[in-house]
Amino acid sequence: MSALPPLGLIAGNGMLPYRIIETLRGSARPVFTVGISGEVDDGFADDMHAWIGLGQLQRARDLMQQEGVREVVIVGGVQRPNLATLDLDEGGAWVVERALSKAQRGDNAVLSLVLDYFEAQGFEIVSAAELLSPATPLQGLLTDTDMAPHRQDMARAVEIARHIGALDIGQGAIVARGIVLGVESVEGTDAMLARIGELSDEVRGTQAARAGVLAKVPKPQQDRRIDLPALGPQTVEGAAQAGLAGIVFEADGVLFEALDACIARANREGLFLFGLTTEDL
Amino acid sequence: MSALPPLGLIAGNGMLPYRIIETLRGSARPVFTVGISGEVDDGFADDMHAWIGLGQLQRARDLMQQEGVREVVIVGGVQRPNLATLDLDEGGAWVVERALSKAQRGDNAVLSLVLDYFEAQGFEIVSAAELLSPATPLQGLLTDTDMAPHRQDMARAVEIARHIGALDIGQGAIVARGIVLGVESVEGTDAMLARIGELSDEVRGTQAARAGVLAKVPKPQQDRRIDLPALGPQTVEGAAQAGLAGIVFEADGVLFEALDACIARANREGLFLFGLTTEDL
Repeated sequence: MSALPPLGLIAGNGMLPYRIIETLRGSARPVFTVGISGEVDDGFADDMHAWIGLGQLQRARDLMQQEGVREVVIVGGVQRPNLATLDLDEGGAWVVERALSKAQRGDNAVLSLVLDYFEAQGFEIVSAAELLSPATPLQGLLTDTDMAPHRQDMARAVEIARHIGALDIGQGAIVARGIVLGVESVEGTDAMLARIGELSDEVRGTQAARAGVLAKVPKPQQDRRIDLPALGPQTVEGAAQAGLAGIVFEADGVLFEALDACIARANREGLFLFGLTTEDL
Repeated sequence: MSALPPLGLIAGNGMLPYRIIETLRGSARPVFTVGISGEVDDGFADDMHAWIGLGQLQRARDLMQQEGVREVVIVGGVQRPNLATLDLDEGGAWVVERALSKAQRGDNAVLSLVLDYFEAQGFEIVSAAELLSPATPLQGLLTDTDMAPHRQDMARAVEIARHIGALDIGQGAIVARGIVLGVESVEGTDAMLARIGELSDEVRGTQAARAGVLAKVPKPQQDRRIDLPALGPQTVEGAAQAGLAGIVFEADGVLFEALDACIARANREGLFLFGLTTEDL
């Protein structure tokens, strides 16, 4: 038979699982989707072929094998699980045993164990970034608004974001006029942006006089196949509300949701979007 | 004449200026107090002998010299000044010129320039920590509740706090079960504690099952004469509300407001307070 074997998709929360489904819908490649219960957004529930609890990886493996899946993509966020309430099967126990024997640090520990499990079961892992790579590279200035007046904040925000990534704290930082306004840890980018808006006008920018740059970079030690930082229209909107001047990210190190909408929104608000390449670093 | 020359006190916000006044009230040493307008808490306004704007350091110098002051202590916080609204005298201009020529980083830049100015004017700077040093050293466990079950979080919180201090981001970090829940930047400890309380119960502790440690350490590069991290009953209360298990700090690197009240409150809430010494580091 000539049909391609389906790609297995394990879906957590957020828009990204849906974007992969959409991207592959137009291709010859079928997708077999397994949603993590309680994580997949309600609007996409109908796109799931099967459901698992986070503690039921063996079930996911069995389902994948029945469907002839050889390659798996794992995408979307998961809430940090409450181990006490997990209903563990053998595959889930495999993960939990390893989770407890590792020093549990950072946000991607759980997903990276899921990935380890599927690799150990003989699947090949496909990165979400590979499937979603944009037609044109996200290099340099993507917007009408220039970042030139904000170069210093941009450099410092990237420096801070890299450092806190290496410490496994998070992936984002905000700097305005040399001052660190926020460092992202477990609360996430949206919550960080919301609290910048609550700071006094004397330290942050305003919609009338924008100041401050959000930097998003992958943690150097993280597995780029599962856990790249994501940016989307919500991030641009949050940055606009917080009075920021722009967003800087690694050109090949983020996943963009609705790139065109992001650029349009940024232009409307007068924000810049800038993709760093290795030459800028 | 045998009277001691008065100590000059430049007071910003918070309880610490008042604690110095109180401490010296019982001694033979008179104090000449100069409050920074808009910073000194209303309750202590009557304790000020004179007032200056943050841009009027020359006036402060003149007043100090008239009173025979040779030693100056600078204590309390200042809001980041809006340069446009400052009414600058020559001393203020001296500071602003230097502030603008430096890469303005971190929180203590303004106070450290005030200190530079008074040093350049021939005053000796006395550290608040020296004046407020407690009768017994703040070493080790100060509370009935032990930190033993939280040693790992304690170590990681201290590690993170040191790193973010070295990067001039801030002085505090919160870690619970290995996960960084918060990194303090310009928002301050109280705001950081408040937002920990908004995180899901699955990542943070609760009043019934406390988890997580707040670490406060001085930035390695900061001038300990002016800008040690401060802890007080409000910090203990905030930590209790956020479900934390305890607070760790450098035994000789923090200023405690109302130490006895802090210990009593911590004991009542079941929190630990632990002062790290060089042997623990």
